[in-house]
Amino acid sequence: MPPIPRQSSLRPESGQRPWQALVHEIIYEADTPAGKAFDVLLLILIIGSVAAVMLESVPSIGDRWGDELRVLEWVFTILFTIEYVLRLICVLKPMGYARSFFGIVDLLAIIPTYLTLLPIEQSLQAALVIRSLRLIRVFRIFKLAQYLTEADSLLIAMRAAAAKITVFLVIVTSVVLIMGSLMYIVEGDPNDPTNQFTSIPKGVYWAVVTMTTVGYGDVTPQTWLGQTLAAFSMIIGYSIIVVPTGIFSVEVIRAMDKSLSTRSCPSCSKYGHADDAKFCKHCGAPL
Amino acid sequence: MPPIPRQSSLRPESGQRPWQALVHEIIYEADTPAGKAFDVLLLILIIGSVAAVMLESVPSIGDRWGDELRVLEWVFTILFTIEYVLRLICVLKPMGYARSFFGIVDLLAIIPTYLTLLPIEQSLQAALVIRSLRLIRVFRIFKLAQYLTEADSLLIAMRAAAAKITVFLVIVTSVVLIMGSLMYIVEGDPNDPTNQFTSIPKGVYWAVVTMTTVGYGDVTPQTWLGQTLAAFSMIIGYSIIVVPTGIFSVEVIRAMDKSLSTRSCPSCSKYGHADDAKFCKHCGAPL
Amino acid sequence: MPPIPRQSSLRPESGQRPWQALVHEIIYEADTPAGKAFDVLLLILIIGSVAAVMLESVPSIGDRWGDELRVLEWVFTILFTIEYVLRLICVLKPMGYARSFFGIVDLLAIIPTYLTLLPIEQSLQAALVIRSLRLIRVFRIFKLAQYLTEADSLLIAMRAAAAKITVFLVIVTSVVLIMGSLMYIVEGDPNDPTNQFTSIPKGVYWAVVTMTTVGYGDVTPQTWLGQTLAAFSMIIGYSIIVVPTGIFSVEVIRAMDKSLSTRSCPSCSKYGHADDAKFCKHCGAPL
Amino acid sequence: MPPIPRQSSLRPESGQRPWQALVHEIIYEADTPAGKAFDVLLLILIIGSVAAVMLESVPSIGDRWGDELRVLEWVFTILFTIEYVLRLICVLKPMGYARSFFGIVDLLAIIPTYLTLLPIEQSLQAALVIRSLRLIRVFRIFKLAQYLTEADSLLIAMRAAAAKITVFLVIVTSVVLIMGSLMYIVEGDPNDPTNQFTSIPKGVYWAVVTMTTVGYGDVTPQTWLGQTLAAFSMIIGYSIIVVPTGIFSVEVIRAMDKSLSTRSCPSCSKYGHADDAKFCKHCGAPL
Repeated sequence: MPPIPRQSSLRPESGQRPWQALVHEIIYEADTPAGKAFDVLLLILIIGSVAAVMLESVPSIGDRWGDELRVLEWVFTILFTIEYVLRLICVLKPMGYARSFFGIVDLLAIIPTYLTLLPIEQSLQAALVIRSLRLIRVFRIFKLAQYLTEADSLLIAMRAAAAKITVFLVIVTSVVLIMGSLMYIVEGDPNDPTNQFTSIPKGVYWAVVTMTTVGYGDVTPQTWLGQTLAAFSMIIGYSIIVVPTGIFSVEVIRAMDKSLSTRSCPSCSKYGHADDAKFCKHCGAPL
Repeated sequence: MPPIPRQSSLRPESGQRPWQALVHEIIYEADTPAGKAFDVLLLILIIGSVAAVMLESVPSIGDRWGDELRVLEWVFTILFTIEYVLRLICVLKPMGYARSFFGIVDLLAIIPTYLTLLPIEQSLQAALVIRSLRLIRVFRIFKLAQYLTEADSLLIAMRAAAAKITVFLVIVTSVVLIMGSLMYIVEGDPNDPTNQFTSIPKGVYWAVVTMTTVGYGDVTPQTWLGQTLAAFSMIIGYSIIVVPTGIFSVEVIRAMDKSLSTRSCPSCSKYGHADDAKFCKHCGAPL
Repeated sequence: MPPIPRQSSLRPESGQRPWQALVHEIIYEADTPAGKAFDVLLLILIIGSVAAVMLESVPSIGDRWGDELRVLEWVFTILFTIEYVLRLICVLKPMGYARSFFGIVDLLAIIPTYLTLLPIEQSLQAALVIRSLRLIRVFRIFKLAQYLTEADSLLIAMRAAAAKITVFLVIVTSVVLIMGSLMYIVEGDPNDPTNQFTSIPKGVYWAVVTMTTVGYGDVTPQTWLGQTLAAFSMIIGYSIIVVPTGIFSVEVIRAMDKSLSTRSCPSCSKYGHADDAKFCKHCGAPL
Repeated sequence: MPPIPRQSSLRPESGQRPWQALVHEIIYEADTPAGKAFDVLLLILIIGSVAAVMLESVPSIGDRWGDELRVLEWVFTILFTIEYVLRLICVLKPMGYARSFFGIVDLLAIIPTYLTLLPIEQSLQAALVIRSLRLIRVFRIFKLAQYLTEADSLLIAMRAAAAKITVFLVIVTSVVLIMGSLMYIVEGDPNDPTNQFTSIPKGVYWAVVTMTTVGYGDVTPQTWLGQTLAAFSMIIGYSIIVVPTGIFSVEVIRAMDKSLSTRSCPSCSKYGHADDAKFCKHCGAPL
C-alpha cells in the first residue's frame, strides 16, 4: 500500500484560525509543496546571512563593501524577525516554541543586529561577539536531520557511548596533564632561549596538540630527551585515541541492530527481537 | 568444475563486422591474452603521460627537457586519439560510450593538447589548466576496479552510509563555522601584529585544519585563551570525527554480510550460509 | 522490584569501632549522601591543587601570585594529609591500602611539599620534578571509573588486544627505524645547511612524527627524493596505523558481547539473550 | 590433558650428528630453557647493534666515542657471523635457510662491516647506506611473532583486505594527483615569491601530506581560493581515508571469527562452523 501523500489538509485545530493553520503548515511542516519551498528558502537565507557576516570580517572586503553588507544584514534580520513572529503567532502554545532549543537560537540570531541601534558604547570586540552569535543560526540547518531518520540511530549510539566516552575523557585529561608537565620538566629550561615549554599549561597545550595528532609544530621539543619522550607519547597517545573509535563503532552497530529488528510480537506488539529469535523475548509467544 | 577459459570466440554480434568484433574484444574485454596485454599497455601509457605532465611542471626539468616532453605529450595524445576513435568504431552504439563517464574522460584527456594548436592567446594559467585536465585520465585506471568484485561492496557501503554522512557533514560545517568565528573573536585583535586570525574565513580555515587533525601550523592561536579554546576544540573535534569511521565500518560489515547471505536453503529457506557451506546449518539439508 | 537504596547502615565489622565504620563509609563508599558529598569535594580539591601547580609555573602569574599559590599549596597538602591518615586509620588492614595503587599515589601526592621543608639544596629542576609529581594525583579521579561499570569492558578489551598490540608495536618500531635511517641516508647531506636529518635518531623522530600523522613540520624533507620517500611512508604508515583500530574495535565488541550473554536459559541452557529479554529466544521458556 | 612440555629430546634426525641436533635445538627452537635463553640474548644483541649504529650517526657522540662504537660494531658483526655459520651448519638443508627471508636478512646484516675492509674508495654516502642496512636486522625480532599465534589472524585479515586496499590505493593516488595539480593551478603563480606550489610534484606532495592528515605545514596555500580548496580536500580526504579503517576492522572480525569456531564436526572433522550452527556445513551431520 503506497503512502498517501499529505496534501494541504486545512482542518484547523481547536483554537486555531484557518490562516494560522495554513501558516503553521507552511512553516512547521515539510511534506507539502509550500512547506518544502519555505524550508529551502529559509536554508538559502541562513547560508546567505552567515556568508555576509563572514565576508564582512575580511578586511579587504569589509572596507570596500561594508555598507552594502550592513544593508544586507538588516534585510536578513528583518526577514528572520518576520519568520520568528509568524512562528510565535501560528502555534497554539507560543511559549513552548519560545523556550525550545530552536526558539532560543532563532531569537539569539536576530537580537544582535537590533542591539547595534542602542546608544551603548560599542567596542570593536563586543560588536564582533554579537555578529558571530548569528552564526549559531546555522544550527537551524539541523532541521534537515529531522527528515533523515538516520539521525536517530546516531543519537542512540552517542547516548549509549556517553558513559564510556566520559571514562575515556578522564583518562585523556590525566595523560595530557602528566605528559605536559613531564615535557615542561624535561624541556622547560628557563635559561634556554629556544625553549618553547615556558609553563605547564603550555606543555599541556603541546600534549593535546600531539595526542590528537593535530601537530601544529608551534611548540616542539628541542632536546634529544624531549624528542624521545615526545615520540613515545605519540605512540601511546595513538593507542589511547584508538579507544573511542572502537567504542563508537560498537554502539553504532548496536543502535542499528535495534532499529533493524522491526518484527513486532503478534501477542504483545513489542519490538527489539534479534534476527534469529523464534519466540518473543517479552511474553514468550512464538513470533 | 573449473571455469572454462574464455578463448578468442569471434562470433560477431548482429551488425558488427568480424574485425570490429576482434577490436572490441581486445579493447573492452580483459579475459583474453590480447585484451589483457592491451589493458596493461594502456595503463603504462596513462602513467607515462601523467608523469610527463608532472615533470614538465618542475622548473629545472621543464627548462631543460621541455621540447622533448612536449614531443612525448603529442605522442601520447595521438595514441590516445587512435584508442578513442577505435572505441567509437567498434561498439554497436557509439553514442552510448561517448556519453558514459569513461567516454567523457577519454575525450577530455585528448582535447587540451589539440587546443594548443588554435591561434588563441595562450596565457600561462590557461595552459596549465588544460594540461592538468589530462591527469583525470588516471581515472581510467579504475577499470581495474571492475575486475575486483570487492569494489561492489565498497560502493554499497558508501551508498548506504550516504544519508548518515550528510547529517555528519552538516554538523561538522556548523561546528567548524562556530569554532572559527569564536577563535576570530578571541584571537583576532587587529592591533596585534602576531595575530593570525585576520578574518572569520581564516578562522574557519583554521578550524577545518584543526578538526581534521591535519594541523599545518600556519595559523595558530597565540593567546592563552585561544590555546585553551583550541585544545578543547581538538578533543571535541576528535570525538566528532570518530563518528563517520564507526558508521562506515558498520556499512561495510553489512554490505559484506549481504554479499555472503544470498543463498537460501532449498529445504527450510533460511539464509545466512557461509561461502564454503555445502549443507544448511539450520536443518542439515544439502544446499 | 526496585533496588533498595543503601542507607547509612552503621554495623561495624569485627575489630572496627563505630566512628571508624562511619569514616570508612564516608571515605570509601559512594552510595550514601555523605559519601557522595565527600567524593565530589575531593574531586574539587584535586582539580584545585592541580590548577594551582599549573598556574604557578606560568611566569607572569608565578611572579605576581607566587606567595598566595604557595600558601594554597600548603592548604591542599594538609587537607590531603588528613585524608590520607583517615584512610589509614579507618580500614582494618592499613598496609593493604598503603600498598595499593591509590595508596601509593595518595602518598606521593603529599610528600613533595613536605620535602621542600628539608634543608637540602633545592635546584630549580628538582623543585619542578617534585611539584609535577602532585599531578599524578589526578589519577585519583579514576575512582569515578569504579562506578562506571563500563570501565570493565574497556579493560577486558585492552587485555584481550594486548598480544596483538605487542606484535603491532614491534612492526611499527622496525618500520620507524628503517624509514628513519633511509631518510637519513637520502636527506642527511652534512654539507647542506638546510639539511634537517642530522642523525639517525633525528630521522627516527621524524618517522614517528610522520607515521602517527602528528606531523609537526620541525623536521621535513627538502630534496625531491626525500619528499617522494616521505609521501610513500605516509601512505604505508597510514595503512599500518589502521591495524590497531580494527583490532581494538573487535575486542570491544567481544567484551561487550560477553557482558551481555552470561544469562543462560533454565530450560534449554542456551546463551545470547539481550539485557531486556524476559523469555528465552530459542525455546520460549521464561528466563 | 595438559600439553607435554618438550624437554631436551636429543634424538638426532637422519644425517644429523648429536652436536648438530643440540645446536639446532638451541638456535631454532624456543621451548627449551637453552633455546629461550639464546633467543633473549640474540634480541639484546640486535637491539645493541642497532643502538650502536644510531648513536654513531649523532655528530656529538660519533666524534667523541667513534672508535669505541666501531670496535663494538666489529664485536657485534663477529658474533652475528658465528651465529650465521652455526645456523648453516646445524640444519640439514643449509641452502633452504640461506635462501629464506631471515637467511638473507642475516647475511645482509653482517656483510656491510666486512665490506669496509676492502680497498674500495669509501664515499661517506656509501658508508652510510651500508651501515643502515644493518638496521634491517631488526626484522629478526619478528621471530617473536611466531610465538604469538595472534599474528596469524592479523596476516589472514591483511591478506583478505589486500584486494580492497588495492582499489583504495588506486582511488587515493588519483585523488592525490588531481588535488595536487589543482592546487598547483590555483596557487602556483610563478611571479609570487610566497608561492610554495612551484611544480605539480610539489602539489602532489602537499596533497599526500594533507590527505593522510600528517600536515607538516612546509607547503601551505596562501591565497583564499587555495585555502578554500584545501579545506574541502581535507574533509573529502578524511572521508576517503576512513574507508580502509572500516575494511580492516571487518577483515579482523572475520579472521577472528574463523579462528574462534573451534568446534569440529564429529563426522568429517572439519572446522569453521558458525556459533549457531546445528549441523555440519560440510557433510550435513548433526554437530
